[in-house]
Amino acid sequence: MTGEYRVIHIPGEFLPERGGVLNGIDIAYHTYGRLNAERSNAVWVCHALTANSDVADWWPHTVETGRFLDPDKNFVICANILGSCYGSTGPLSKNPDTGRPWYTDFPHLTMRDIVRAHILLADALGIDRIHALIGSSVGGFQALEWAVMEPERFEKIVLIATDAYASPWTIAIDETQRMAITADATYGEPRPDAGARGLAAARAIGLLTYRGPLGYNATQQDLPGATLEDPHRACTYQRHQGDKLVRRFDAYSYMAILDTFDTHDVGRGRGGRSAALKRIKAPVLVVGLTTDIIFTPAEMRALAASIKGARYAELDSPFGHDGFLVEHEQLNSLILPFLEGQTE
Amino acid sequence: MTGEYRVIHIPGEFLPERGGVLNGIDIAYHTYGRLNAERSNAVWVCHALTANSDVADWWPHTVETGRFLDPDKNFVICANILGSCYGSTGPLSKNPDTGRPWYTDFPHLTMRDIVRAHILLADALGIDRIHALIGSSVGGFQALEWAVMEPERFEKIVLIATDAYASPWTIAIDETQRMAITADATYGEPRPDAGARGLAAARAIGLLTYRGPLGYNATQQDLPGATLEDPHRACTYQRHQGDKLVRRFDAYSYMAILDTFDTHDVGRGRGGRSAALKRIKAPVLVVGLTTDIIFTPAEMRALAASIKGARYAELDSPFGHDGFLVEHEQLNSLILPFLEGQTE
Repeated sequence: MTGEYRVIHIPGEFLPERGGVLNGIDIAYHTYGRLNAERSNAVWVCHALTANSDVADWWPHTVETGRFLDPDKNFVICANILGSCYGSTGPLSKNPDTGRPWYTDFPHLTMRDIVRAHILLADALGIDRIHALIGSSVGGFQALEWAVMEPERFEKIVLIATDAYASPWTIAIDETQRMAITADATYGEPRPDAGARGLAAARAIGLLTYRGPLGYNATQQDLPGATLEDPHRACTYQRHQGDKLVRRFDAYSYMAILDTFDTHDVGRGRGGRSAALKRIKAPVLVVGLTTDIIFTPAEMRALAASIKGARYAELDSPFGHDGFLVEHEQLNSLILPFLEGQTE
Repeated sequence: MTGEYRVIHIPGEFLPERGGVLNGIDIAYHTYGRLNAERSNAVWVCHALTANSDVADWWPHTVETGRFLDPDKNFVICANILGSCYGSTGPLSKNPDTGRPWYTDFPHLTMRDIVRAHILLADALGIDRIHALIGSSVGGFQALEWAVMEPERFEKIVLIATDAYASPWTIAIDETQRMAITADATYGEPRPDAGARGLAAARAIGLLTYRGPLGYNATQQDLPGATLEDPHRACTYQRHQGDKLVRRFDAYSYMAILDTFDTHDVGRGRGGRSAALKRIKAPVLVVGLTTDIIFTPAEMRALAASIKGARYAELDSPFGHDGFLVEHEQLNSLILPFLEGQTE
């Protein structure tokens, strides 16, 4: 499914929560299908860490007829998150004051800033009510924040492999990635590919946590007959994944998004997480994965229990956190009935 | 308990499995207690990745009266592994041919080379029979290799949180650490502290896998009232752990030991792992940890099932792989009866 890609410029000062100012922001987004006359069929997808707005590309078999992102019925929208490098304003964008890219001078963003950009886009598109808000991983961080910020905007919310705050475990994973990036002394040099080797290592760290023990052991066993001097498949795989990210991302944008991850906490300034989550009005479906070591099943159950009336379901997958990208059949059989209201 | 520390020099050519030559090797070791007249009370401990020969220091409450490493009854021995930097020959040792440290020119070692050094030491000490061989993590790699190489030498074997080969998952973890070290372009410079920032990042990666989600979430929650600009405790912790290792280890030795880890496979050249494990003659106790994400409970059960007559027991711990360093009471109540033969 090919979507329509657009970039909207929102003029005026955008003031990030942690200070600084962006004089106008760009928001890149994809849409699939058509907004109906009642403007009642919008389904908003929030993407994860290094993804982009092209949902049909990074989430196979979801933007298809008969699926939970059915472009024949829904108007599916996904916006590239602020701080990223796929068309929305980020560290590689030009600082209008200097005419040069921001790099490390880019303001520190939070998940709330990212969601404020989503709100600006939704308002600009005239979508007051969103039929369903769907987020996985860091996409779920955005979905939770947005659901708390604007509880009236949503009819249904789906939260997959995510949390209401960045746990110490997930923050430790991020900090380790920062340590890898800054171990590369080229990080900080004023060029887009600065810190590339560090970024590759950071990506490899991420991959470990996305796949977990079962994921690697199921797919990266050495071939029979491999000798002591043959490179292990698991080694080749890690380097390949690191190199792949370096070709499509940059260390500055990566660091910017890690920042938004670590400061995620729907409870901040709202009397705690429990009070914040009470603001949510729409029915919520929480989906965990049996082998996810980032957002463990125990934590996903706890998240569901902390949102009034939320339903909890679990995907059975050997692919760890990344299972949400793979188990589209299971996901569809959970999400489609929930969105169609058959299970209420 | 203060042990006795000695370094023995074994003259002659030591020929590593993967090539190269060491003209004489040093082996540093600690002993606790006395070898009895019958030479029947030796308990050999194999240490893990970055530990040293001082078991009483790194494994609290084990080298104590009434514990499974009872210095009143046993003659406890632990040797610093070849390739390390605590007294045994390693990359920072002088290459006798050049008079300068080996650094990256140090021969690639395997677990079998490490065990051959243990054998040279045991022979030099006149310890033909070892009452018990105990290894955790990479220490278990050595114990398994040794048990396969010299099945007659041992009366009891205890394998904690380990495996008969390096799984793709564990190799991927190691490769990611290598990527972090080599992202630091100073690695390779001829000085002991080369690659220090990369090493710190590598250690932080290791820590993630040693502790796991529960470990971090139990101990590194941010304090109530922490603001958006306060550093997260999980970040401070990761950096602190990285810096701590840099002060006591070096990137060259770390890389050398990672190499021995990745090539560990008791089945190599022996008709496969199943055939190799059949050589083991002593009773074996396999101990897993409920929250270990490196050597998962499922893999530990599979390891036990692959060794004829092996018993399996599990430590209930929230501290992941590192639980073996913490849960000394549980360990003692499992290992002591096994070593004393009460359960056979």
